[in-house]
Amino acid sequence: MRVLGIDPGLTRCGLGMVDGVPGRPPFVLAVDVVRTSAHEETGARLAVLEETMEEWVRRYRPAAVAVERVFAQHNVGTVMGTAQAAGVALLVAARHGIPTALHTPSEVKAAITGSGRAGKDQVGAMVARILRLDEVPKPADAADALALAICHVWRGQSTDRLDAARQAASGVAARQQRAYAAARTGAATSPRTGTRGPRA
Amino acid sequence: MRVLGIDPGLTRCGLGMVDGVPGRPPFVLAVDVVRTSAHEETGARLAVLEETMEEWVRRYRPAAVAVERVFAQHNVGTVMGTAQAAGVALLVAARHGIPTALHTPSEVKAAITGSGRAGKDQVGAMVARILRLDEVPKPADAADALALAICHVWRGQSTDRLDAARQAASGVAARQQRAYAAARTGAATSPRTGTRGPRA
Repeated sequence: MRVLGIDPGLTRCGLGMVDGVPGRPPFVLAVDVVRTSAHEETGARLAVLEETMEEWVRRYRPAAVAVERVFAQHNVGTVMGTAQAAGVALLVAARHGIPTALHTPSEVKAAITGSGRAGKDQVGAMVARILRLDEVPKPADAADALALAICHVWRGQSTDRLDAARQAASGVAARQQRAYAAARTGAATSPRTGTRGPRA
Repeated sequence: MRVLGIDPGLTRCGLGMVDGVPGRPPFVLAVDVVRTSAHEETGARLAVLEETMEEWVRRYRPAAVAVERVFAQHNVGTVMGTAQAAGVALLVAARHGIPTALHTPSEVKAAITGSGRAGKDQVGAMVARILRLDEVPKPADAADALALAICHVWRGQSTDRLDAARQAASGVAARQQRAYAAARTGAATSPRTGTRGPRA
């Protein structure tokens, strides 16, 4: 399973492409950190991220894109840009029909180090060990992107499907699934979703 | 001056296209609200917004795109989606080389009603009056998008240029402008912006 991990950010956005199967050490295909200048306008910065992600997706054709889940409560100063960078990642994936999953930082830390409270250094060291790299990927955004991808490979499937699996295990699953399918169908066809073209 | 006003949101995103010059009543070319279902994945919802905005920009070729400025402090529950919808608007504008401006809700209210604390109803009523519409555009997102566009037309130029004008009026303008130009040039070429393609 090939997974693109994305640690979203406007100033630094980590990208890590990993190949692997659950339960075995994956290997790294590519890792990089895209930087954009705070002197540029937000739209131009997002366009750079979009272009890079498009290039990676076309070149490596990942089976899934794993993005760090952003919380509005944290880092009010940078959260808007982080949310927008994550949005572009989800948009690019949707455009190519690639399933996406959001993982929280503590889910990733727990998957990589065994502790949801591990520090940056510990995550970086474990990423290097798991991927048999000679040194810890720098900056931390690169290591974090790889950690996200590894976490996702090891979870084996998208969060959505895990959620669906959990739902399926519960008694109400079938009814909920039917309601969900109906809502999705409705969303694609009903007038409630609005006209998508301009109205003069 | 033709301006596309965008009241960003994932569930409802208001779009309003207005033609006008500062100091005179503008007229409306198009107004709509794009709705996407919360049952869809975020990436797919953003793709619907992107597609609609692309269509509007190609059809009407606005001279500017005015987007409501989103604050991380407000509405923690929806702020991430709002920020991402705004990001897509800025991305689409950047792609077409269209200048963008962010206006705060109180700037828009003040421009339209004379009071930065005006209520939704008052803004809607004034938008209808200014644009000589028979009724108030509904839902509020439609009126808000038109209000943003009118506000921007009346300000006559992008916030950035207004900032630049204010800077130019101050003594330190020339030095700052040179530093800014240098930073932009640097951002496009220097290794500090990172490689934008994958690195194996």
